[in-house]
Amino acid sequence: MTRTDFFDVPNFMLQKGGMLPTARLSYKTLGTLNSDRSNAVLVPSWYTGTHADTEMFMTGTGRALDPQKYFIILPDLLGNGLSTSPSNAPAPVDRGRFPRVTIHDNVRLQYQLITEVLGIETLRLVTGWSMGACQTYQWAAQYPGMVRAACPIAGSARTASFNKVFLLALKRTLELDPTFAEGFYERAPVAGLRAFAAIYAGWGVSEPFFRTEAYRLFGAGSHEEFVQYFWEPFFLKCDANNLLSQLSTWLDGDISANPAYGGDFHAALRAIRARTIVMPVDHDRYFPPVDAEEEVRHIPNSECRVINSIWGHMAPMNPGDSPAIDAALSELLE
Amino acid sequence: MTRTDFFDVPNFMLQKGGMLPTARLSYKTLGTLNSDRSNAVLVPSWYTGTHADTEMFMTGTGRALDPQKYFIILPDLLGNGLSTSPSNAPAPVDRGRFPRVTIHDNVRLQYQLITEVLGIETLRLVTGWSMGACQTYQWAAQYPGMVRAACPIAGSARTASFNKVFLLALKRTLELDPTFAEGFYERAPVAGLRAFAAIYAGWGVSEPFFRTEAYRLFGAGSHEEFVQYFWEPFFLKCDANNLLSQLSTWLDGDISANPAYGGDFHAALRAIRARTIVMPVDHDRYFPPVDAEEEVRHIPNSECRVINSIWGHMAPMNPGDSPAIDAALSELLE
Repeated sequence: MTRTDFFDVPNFMLQKGGMLPTARLSYKTLGTLNSDRSNAVLVPSWYTGTHADTEMFMTGTGRALDPQKYFIILPDLLGNGLSTSPSNAPAPVDRGRFPRVTIHDNVRLQYQLITEVLGIETLRLVTGWSMGACQTYQWAAQYPGMVRAACPIAGSARTASFNKVFLLALKRTLELDPTFAEGFYERAPVAGLRAFAAIYAGWGVSEPFFRTEAYRLFGAGSHEEFVQYFWEPFFLKCDANNLLSQLSTWLDGDISANPAYGGDFHAALRAIRARTIVMPVDHDRYFPPVDAEEEVRHIPNSECRVINSIWGHMAPMNPGDSPAIDAALSELLE
Repeated sequence: MTRTDFFDVPNFMLQKGGMLPTARLSYKTLGTLNSDRSNAVLVPSWYTGTHADTEMFMTGTGRALDPQKYFIILPDLLGNGLSTSPSNAPAPVDRGRFPRVTIHDNVRLQYQLITEVLGIETLRLVTGWSMGACQTYQWAAQYPGMVRAACPIAGSARTASFNKVFLLALKRTLELDPTFAEGFYERAPVAGLRAFAAIYAGWGVSEPFFRTEAYRLFGAGSHEEFVQYFWEPFFLKCDANNLLSQLSTWLDGDISANPAYGGDFHAALRAIRARTIVMPVDHDRYFPPVDAEEEVRHIPNSECRVINSIWGHMAPMNPGDSPAIDAALSELLE
């Protein structure tokens, strides 16, 4: 069974202040929930990604996340253009005046869907890539009793300072395009998005990826063609306000930034009860393994398993790196 | 003896086409040339740097580059605002229409100064940081008979693809500021320079520099204050066209991109006769040690000596990393 649906919550109060008159959570489910409701797997989306991307890259018959075996829930991140976003919210929270949304808000909204609509009390596994990993950590710390296993892939439980300076550069650059007009643009700020894409290219994959000219896989003969052929289309299809909204969600990522933990990061990690495999990528520039290792020292039932890939942060998009990921997911699903 | 001077060459033809009606090379010399003209040391400037910066950070009584012992020549890079630059060139090569200048052009101009004006036939040592290192390699390959020793610090003999994508991001971003006006601005493009500074912050120092909050040395309590307190003033004092001119010089860096070597990079490295110590920094993001090791495999009388520093590319600006550099320079000057 495949189903795409929406779940609407009125007057959704936001963690950082403000509210959404309607918080719409877009999601897709794959497979069938079994009779004892024990086969639910949650896979939140990543920066710019949608449930369709999550489905394509992370699930499939014969893969660890097999819709023949599991009831797989694929929620869309607030700000991704399908769930409530600057691009689809009505006034007075439209476009450049969309309020600040956190990972905590996203997970709270997903919790309502899963418990109230789908009637599920336990998640067999939560996993996701990048911002999907950030949501995975958040789920495990925010609802520790509900998450049996967790596999955050190339993400972090708290956004690091180095990661934040990358996000600052992206934000300043996109806002620099005069067409952007503080978020009330008449047409896409193309030059801004192109500069955004060029910045991203220097972080999304690794130095050896460029040095070995792995960009030839995309038909590119140089760094600049790689930006043109891969990164520009990747971001030009995105709404600029949506990019900035998701970016601020990423920036604020911190599983302890809420009353339950009062900023005590180690306490939030210690509260996680899920069997957890943290999967950083050795060449990931903004989510380096050193941060994952630090997290694992505080999550009780966890281990760190490093993916070795010159694709860096983008490794989970590389078919060659899927077997390592699927092996960990299968182990957690056993 | 301290002397700041200018050397003017009329109708200076440029490697990539075009010409400068007057190529003015600004330079300063420290110390005294000895009677057999054997104590000359050349230290070219880095990106945004001037001879005053080179003097302050790399020379001094009691240091390896001691003006009491050596005749130290500190030339200014074309485009740095003191030598001929977009900011000081008269029409028709002013501002946004300044022609493309290469490292080869710079070294050729410095060669004229050193041989024709200063009457020097042999350089005891050429050394420099970053683009100063790029000029060091160029000197050693372009005039192999003149350079007895070379110490390129945190630079490369040919700009790598990964480095170029960083430069592309900087260029696209600065040009995005509507105030920039294709180089014919009425006032500094401040917002563009601020975004430029934020991009640079994520490359100029390392991930562990941010992780350990080493930016507290600058009085900064966060990644954003570090950008504000250190990187913004660093670039806001620069002319935007000058930044882009030097950037294109950096981008085109390749000691083999000239008729002498016809693009044969290994042949250009093999032609170097100087005793060479290549000094990359382990945490340098755009000039990684792996590239330096590759160079050393082809430079006959050379070794690679890695500086270990979380300051990354900026290590030579950190007083704590000076002893390692001075030790190598002293060894080459013995």
